[in-house]
Amino acid sequence: MITGKNYIGNRLSATGDNTYTTFNPKLNIENEHTFYEASQDEINEALILASTAYETYKKMPGVRKSAFLNTIADEILALDNTLIQAYMAESGLPEGRAIGERGRTIGQLRMFAKLVEEGSWVDATIDTGDHNRTPIPKPDLRKILIPLGPVVVFGASNFPLAYSTAGGDTASALAAGCPVIVKSHPMHAGTGELVASAIIKAAQKTGMPNGVFSNLNSKGIEVGTQLVKHPAVKAVGFTGSIRGGRALFDLASQRPEPIPVFAEMGSINPVVILPNAAHNQGEILAKTYAKSITLGTGQFCTNPGLILGLKRNSLDNFIQVLANEIATIEPSCMLHPSIVTNYEKNKENALQQKGTTTVSEYTDTLAPNYARQAVVKVDGKTFLENPVLHQEVFGPFSIVVACKDQQELETIISNLEGQLTGTIIAENKEIKKYTTVIEALQNRVGRIIFNGVPTGVEVCPAMLHGGPYPASTDSRFTAVGIHSIKRWVRPFSFQNWPNDALPDELKNENPLNISRLLNGEQTYNPI
Amino acid sequence: MITGKNYIGNRLSATGDNTYTTFNPKLNIENEHTFYEASQDEINEALILASTAYETYKKMPGVRKSAFLNTIADEILALDNTLIQAYMAESGLPEGRAIGERGRTIGQLRMFAKLVEEGSWVDATIDTGDHNRTPIPKPDLRKILIPLGPVVVFGASNFPLAYSTAGGDTASALAAGCPVIVKSHPMHAGTGELVASAIIKAAQKTGMPNGVFSNLNSKGIEVGTQLVKHPAVKAVGFTGSIRGGRALFDLASQRPEPIPVFAEMGSINPVVILPNAAHNQGEILAKTYAKSITLGTGQFCTNPGLILGLKRNSLDNFIQVLANEIATIEPSCMLHPSIVTNYEKNKENALQQKGTTTVSEYTDTLAPNYARQAVVKVDGKTFLENPVLHQEVFGPFSIVVACKDQQELETIISNLEGQLTGTIIAENKEIKKYTTVIEALQNRVGRIIFNGVPTGVEVCPAMLHGGPYPASTDSRFTAVGIHSIKRWVRPFSFQNWPNDALPDELKNENPLNISRLLNGEQTYNPI
Repeated sequence: MITGKNYIGNRLSATGDNTYTTFNPKLNIENEHTFYEASQDEINEALILASTAYETYKKMPGVRKSAFLNTIADEILALDNTLIQAYMAESGLPEGRAIGERGRTIGQLRMFAKLVEEGSWVDATIDTGDHNRTPIPKPDLRKILIPLGPVVVFGASNFPLAYSTAGGDTASALAAGCPVIVKSHPMHAGTGELVASAIIKAAQKTGMPNGVFSNLNSKGIEVGTQLVKHPAVKAVGFTGSIRGGRALFDLASQRPEPIPVFAEMGSINPVVILPNAAHNQGEILAKTYAKSITLGTGQFCTNPGLILGLKRNSLDNFIQVLANEIATIEPSCMLHPSIVTNYEKNKENALQQKGTTTVSEYTDTLAPNYARQAVVKVDGKTFLENPVLHQEVFGPFSIVVACKDQQELETIISNLEGQLTGTIIAENKEIKKYTTVIEALQNRVGRIIFNGVPTGVEVCPAMLHGGPYPASTDSRFTAVGIHSIKRWVRPFSFQNWPNDALPDELKNENPLNISRLLNGEQTYNPI
Repeated sequence: MITGKNYIGNRLSATGDNTYTTFNPKLNIENEHTFYEASQDEINEALILASTAYETYKKMPGVRKSAFLNTIADEILALDNTLIQAYMAESGLPEGRAIGERGRTIGQLRMFAKLVEEGSWVDATIDTGDHNRTPIPKPDLRKILIPLGPVVVFGASNFPLAYSTAGGDTASALAAGCPVIVKSHPMHAGTGELVASAIIKAAQKTGMPNGVFSNLNSKGIEVGTQLVKHPAVKAVGFTGSIRGGRALFDLASQRPEPIPVFAEMGSINPVVILPNAAHNQGEILAKTYAKSITLGTGQFCTNPGLILGLKRNSLDNFIQVLANEIATIEPSCMLHPSIVTNYEKNKENALQQKGTTTVSEYTDTLAPNYARQAVVKVDGKTFLENPVLHQEVFGPFSIVVACKDQQELETIISNLEGQLTGTIIAENKEIKKYTTVIEALQNRVGRIIFNGVPTGVEVCPAMLHGGPYPASTDSRFTAVGIHSIKRWVRPFSFQNWPNDALPDELKNENPLNISRLLNGEQTYNPI
C-alpha cells in the first residue's frame, strides 16, 4: 500500500509540509497519492540511524547480508501486480517492460547475494611476517575491503526499478556493508515506496539493524543537497543528467571531508559505420538502428544519439532507409510531461541548427506525452564546429554525420566528450584499415561494441557501465555488474594483529574458505 | 651531472626566466646549481609529448614496460655516489638513509616490473556469449584495465627518492601504461634531475616513446597549478601537506572534466596504550616510542604524533620514561630551513595551548636547521575541546593525552580526522574489553597496528597506505604496494569484439598465460 510517507529506518513518517503527486503520462492525469517531502528532522534522523546501523551492519557476515538481499528480492516479487501497476501508472511504460525490469532488479539483488555469500570479493591479501628478516623484521600484514559508511542513492527517472530504490546502486552498497538512504525519484515516488516497503520487510525478517535503509521523498533539490552535505554520508550514487550529477559531485568535492560520488550521467553513444559495412549491410543496419533509437522511447542512457559515417552513396542509402523505417515506428509515451517538453525543445533546437537537414520527423498529431522521433543529418565540418549538436537529446532522436574522410571522422571522435559506449559497424577487414579511428573511439568510451547496438546493458562481471567524464564522474568504476561493489569500499590493513581478533576473512584457518592472495599466490589454502 | 634544466621528454631545456637553488641544511649553505623553472611553453610541450606518447605507450606489452622499469632501476644504481651525495646535500639526511631509500626505490620499480611482466594485474574478465539465449542473445563481453592517460606526479619533500621522481607514484603510473610528468620538488631539484636523467636514459635504451617522461622544475605553485588544470592531464599523484593536497584536489575537481587526484597528506597517527600494557610494558614501550618519534627527525607521514591512554599511574610512568628517554636522543637536521621554522612555530603553538604541560623539550643550543624534540601531555577534555592540538606538527613531536575513562578515549578517537595509521598497544586479553575503542579507531584509519610502531611502511601487496580524508583524498586506493597501480587505470569492456582484434590479455587462446575471471571462475585456461 502506498502511504506517501518516508521510511525513516523502519518507521513511516510524514512530518514535512511540502507535498506532491506523481503523474500518469499515458492517461495524462495526476496519480491519486500525496507524497510528503522529507523534513530536516527526518533527514537527520535517517542519518543518525544509518550511522548507528553501520556499526552493526559493517560486521554482518556475508551469509546474513546474502539472506537480506535475497529476501528483498522475494519481497519485491511478493508485491506482485501492485508494484507493476504503480510502475506503469508512474512511468507510462508498458507491462512487459515493467516485468522485465523487475526481473533485472531481482537478478541484480540475487547476484550480489551470491557474491557476498561466497565471500572472496573482499580481495583478502595476506603477507605473513618474518621475525628473522634483516635489517628489520618483516611485519605480518593482512588487507581486506571494508564498507565506507552510509551511502546516499539518487534513483533514475528512466529505470524506476533497476536503477532506483532497490536498483544496482542500492544492491551493491548493501552488499558492501553500507547502510543506504535513497533520495526517491519524484516521478515514481509510489513505486519507490512500495520497493522501500519490501526492503524494510526484508530487513526486519532477516534481523538487520534499524536504519540500514531509509527512503526519503523529495520533489525539489533541497533534500538531496542536504543529504550530500551531511557529514554522516560517506559516498553517493547517482543516475541521471549531467547537470544533476555534476551539481552533486561539486557539492561532495567542496565538503570539508570530500566524499566519492559515482554519477552515471548522459551519453550520446557514438556509432561509427565504416564504408564496406554501410555498403554491404546498410539496409539491415538501418532497420536495426531505427529500432534501437526508438527503444523505450529513446529513454536509455545507451541510446545511439550519434551515427558517424564516411560521405558515400552507401551512407546516403543507409540514411534513407533509416528515415523511412523510423517513420513507420509507432510513437510511444515518455516518462513525464516535463521529459517530453524537454525532448521536443532540445530536438527542435538541434533541428534549427545551421547546416542540419531533417531526414525524418514524425509530425502527426499524437496523444499527450507521446514523443515524435526524428533523425537529422549534417556534414562533419558543421558538426565539429557546433557543440550544440554534441549534446544529448534524451529521447528517440539521432544525428547522422557524413564525414568527408577518415581524418575528419577521427577528429570528430577525438573531440567528443566521454561516453558510456561506442560502436563500430565494420567488416572484419576494415578493423586494421581504421585502427586510428577505433583507438580514438576507445579513448572516449567505457565500452566498445562490434557490429551491434549500444542499447542492452548485460549484467555480468565483464560489463563496464561508466566511462570518461561526463559519462561518469569516476571512470575507474562501473555502475553495473559485481565489480560495482568496489565503489563503496576501501582497503584496510591489519599489521601484526592477533589471529583470533582478525575478521574471519583474514584468519590463518581461512574459515570462510575464500580465495586469498597469500604471499603473492591466489589460493584457498589456510596458513 | 646536474644541469638545472627541465627534461621536456628526452630534451634538456631551460627557456624560463625564474631560477632558484637548493639548500644544504647540514652545512647551512645554498647548493651550487641553478635551476630553471619550467616555462609555459615547456609545460605545453611536455604535455603534447605525453599525449602523443600515450597512444604508443598504452599499448606497450608488459614485458617491454617491465624492461623499461628494470632499466630505470639499473640506471639509478649506475648514478652511484653522485646520487647519494646530491641526496645528502639537498636533504641533510645521512648516507645510510640515502642508501636505504635508494634500495626502496629500486625495489618498488622492480616490483612493478615483475607485476606487469606477469600480466594478470589487468583483471581480465571474460563472459562468453550465448546466441541461443532467450529472449535476447547473450553478448560476449571482455573487460580489462586500461591506462587513464598522462599522470602528473608531485614529489614529496621527505622522500627525495622513494616518493619523488622515480618513486611509488611514478613507478605505478608507468607500470599502468601512463606517461608521467613530474613536478620536481624544489628542495631536492638536483636529486630529482639525476633520477630523471636515469629514467630518460632507460626510456631511450628500451625504445620508449619520447614524452613517456618529463621532469619540470618549479619553486612556486604556478607550474603545478598549470599542470593540474591542463586538459591533457588525466590524473594526479601527490605526497605532502593537507593544504597542498587539498588545493590540487580542488583545482582538479573544478575542471570542466574533473580528474582523480590521489593525495597522500598529513596524519598524526594516533597510538592507543591500554592500561595493562602500560602497566606491564610501560618502560620498554616508552623507549621504543622515543625512537619512533625522533626517527628521521620526525619527518615521516607515519610519525606517531598522538599517544592516547587512560589516566593511571602506569601512564604517568610511561610519560616519565618517554620524557627522560627522548631527552637523551641526539637532535638531527631537518630537510630545509623552512621546515625547521615551521616545526618550531607549530611546536611552540602547541606548547602554548592552555592545559598542556611540556614533559620534555630539548632546549640546548643546536646547529642551524636541527630540530629540538618535544613531548607534551594534556588531559582528554582539554584535547577534545582544542582542535589546534589535533593538527600535525611535522617533526619530532608528540602529544600524550590522559583520558579519564574508556568513553572519553572513544569519543576522542571518533572525533579525530582521518589518519594513515592507528596503533593499539595492548595485552591480548584487553582486545575484547576495548572492542569499541578499537572499532572507533578502525573507522578513522587506513592501517591498524598491534603492539608496534606506525613508522616503517612495508612495501607489499597487503599494505594499505592511505585512509579516510585527510590522510588521503580517496580512501579507496593505496599509495604503496602493487595495488597502487589501480589509481591510474580504468576498466574497459569489449562487446562481441573479433578475437584477433582484442588485446592479447583477452584473446581466446590466453597467449600471455595470465589468470582471468572466465565465466565466473578464476583460471589460466584458454577458451
